[in-house]
Amino acid sequence: MDLYFDNAATTKLSERALQAYSDTARLFWGNPSSVHRLGLEARRKLDEERSAIARLMGIPSSSLFFTSGATESIAAVISSLLFTTPGKIIISRIEHEAVASWLPVLRQHGWKTEELRAKGGFVSAEELRAALTPDTKLVAIMAVNNVTGAIEPIEELVRTVREYEKEGRRRIFFFSDSVQALGKVEYSPEKLGIDGASFSGHKINGPRGIGMLYLRNPSAFRPLAPAGGQEKGKRGGTENLPAISALRAAAEEWLSDQAEKNAKAAERKAMIVEALRSCGYDLISPEHSSPYIISFSSLLPSEVYTRMLSDRGVYASSGSACSNNAKGEGEKILLGMGVRPDTASRAVRISLSNSTTDEEIEGLIAVINELRDAR
Amino acid sequence: MDLYFDNAATTKLSERALQAYSDTARLFWGNPSSVHRLGLEARRKLDEERSAIARLMGIPSSSLFFTSGATESIAAVISSLLFTTPGKIIISRIEHEAVASWLPVLRQHGWKTEELRAKGGFVSAEELRAALTPDTKLVAIMAVNNVTGAIEPIEELVRTVREYEKEGRRRIFFFSDSVQALGKVEYSPEKLGIDGASFSGHKINGPRGIGMLYLRNPSAFRPLAPAGGQEKGKRGGTENLPAISALRAAAEEWLSDQAEKNAKAAERKAMIVEALRSCGYDLISPEHSSPYIISFSSLLPSEVYTRMLSDRGVYASSGSACSNNAKGEGEKILLGMGVRPDTASRAVRISLSNSTTDEEIEGLIAVINELRDAR
Repeated sequence: MDLYFDNAATTKLSERALQAYSDTARLFWGNPSSVHRLGLEARRKLDEERSAIARLMGIPSSSLFFTSGATESIAAVISSLLFTTPGKIIISRIEHEAVASWLPVLRQHGWKTEELRAKGGFVSAEELRAALTPDTKLVAIMAVNNVTGAIEPIEELVRTVREYEKEGRRRIFFFSDSVQALGKVEYSPEKLGIDGASFSGHKINGPRGIGMLYLRNPSAFRPLAPAGGQEKGKRGGTENLPAISALRAAAEEWLSDQAEKNAKAAERKAMIVEALRSCGYDLISPEHSSPYIISFSSLLPSEVYTRMLSDRGVYASSGSACSNNAKGEGEKILLGMGVRPDTASRAVRISLSNSTTDEEIEGLIAVINELRDAR
Repeated sequence: MDLYFDNAATTKLSERALQAYSDTARLFWGNPSSVHRLGLEARRKLDEERSAIARLMGIPSSSLFFTSGATESIAAVISSLLFTTPGKIIISRIEHEAVASWLPVLRQHGWKTEELRAKGGFVSAEELRAALTPDTKLVAIMAVNNVTGAIEPIEELVRTVREYEKEGRRRIFFFSDSVQALGKVEYSPEKLGIDGASFSGHKINGPRGIGMLYLRNPSAFRPLAPAGGQEKGKRGGTENLPAISALRAAAEEWLSDQAEKNAKAAERKAMIVEALRSCGYDLISPEHSSPYIISFSSLLPSEVYTRMLSDRGVYASSGSACSNNAKGEGEKILLGMGVRPDTASRAVRISLSNSTTDEEIEGLIAVINELRDAR
């Protein structure tokens, strides 16, 4: 039996979402930009899906833009800075490479960059306050970390920025990569007061190749190039309507009764944490973290331990999955939050989804106990 | 009965491609970047699909990168210029907005830009030669125009650039947006000698949200930001494997026996052109054009005539579909090739696919004849 615990890397597309994909591909296949009947029907369908998803997320549909994924949503916001007079950008040391890899580009264009520490997993408002300067234009702090699950104090960090703004300086764009937050923790972009956020479809049983960009004030956003002018000029390219329908179906499943689902995930996490602790493993995930993510360290190098898990049918991660293209990325994030290098090199991530079964949890705990000597 | 003749805007996803999407979404749903069994299987599947598609396209698989669509493929190449010392970029006046909308960004960053005329639909090698300067870094000329179907003399244009390079100046990147070329005309990036090209899945009965980027010399290409490092560092973001499998299935269908299919499309185009001519319509598409695209002008404004077609079940376009987001884009392209403004405002585009049926062709010709007074 496969015991899949790499849901922070990707989740399985739900059957309902797959059905929605097929239905829309068959019935609403016109180009939403075409003005004939097939195009207009596709346009209406697109509007309908956008409204439904926005409602589930508790945001106005006018703030929701579809992209090809979170990586593109992030790129849209950060690259738009290249239009403007260089200033300062502040991120954290635990950002995903989709954010962090922009720093060299910005520096090359004359930007100042600063990466805040995240001691114990959390960015501190004091450190953010100390980093703010009159020429700061963008702050990008993720809502939930993909390696540890740490829930960042976004509300407090936004407040810090807003208070600084009141001192008479110009507006600062607060961006929050929210891929691991949507549907995993209590989360509302509007309540947090952020200006922009990125989301991914395939982390909530939706399809690959579709992501979302939240913009609190879309009129203030100008993309690097509008291309074909789709998405009200914010994102060019023919709209991926089948995937958007699939995302809506996935969101309807995942985001309904969310408090209950998160509570169930938290119970399961507690069981896993208990098993890890009783075997003597060191927990890396902080207390205040996503119920869907558990990072811990074994006595063995990450690759060895995850291989042992894999041999027993347990699929976990030795860091963030993306990291396998750029070796040591998960480790970099752990080091960024102050984990000791030897611990970071032995880190393993287990991540749950709403599709995780009780049998998988039992199977995982059995394997953890079986491998207790590797603790 | 629906008579769909807007295939240059989008084609319908084939059932075989849809089946491939579902199969891969169900069976190979791991993240190709994960190192456990599910990830490794997904990685192998990805490699297999890439090889199969590259083989069909007659290019090395190491030159083929998957993106979210042609718009992104274009953006990847042009935005990468922002890293380099400003120089000159040359495009044509008939490029899609996915290319043309980059000019203001580049100018803002100190680049010189020039848009070549395309008299009668074709870019001239002499004009290109005259525009080349020692600081020219990129030439972007589409392979087949999306509004008229004109087949650009890419081989000759590339030769012009290569000869200019021999005069001792530095290398110039020749990019060719090839969305309407792949599977529609005889086309080989390798034979043409271009350095880069963009392709779209949904123009050949493949899925939305997947595109391709051809790079003759990938090692020379550095994206604006590598993000998660996927696609050998050329394109970040979790690979959209189900859509890639669907694209492979669509490509296997569309690109096999291509010469025969194109010949059949050419026959059909001849029948339609004959019907248009016998009714007295003015043809806009030049002789040397894609067998899948026919542009002509009626006596009525484009919107009125396409509405009349739509009322009779014929779905055509009043320009490029993308243009409906940025009014007058199709018109802009026609003006760029020297069509008179009053003719451009009465232009209609009919576009075929390999799924177009004989019944559709007959139905279209009947409607053309029925509307002969609007000629």
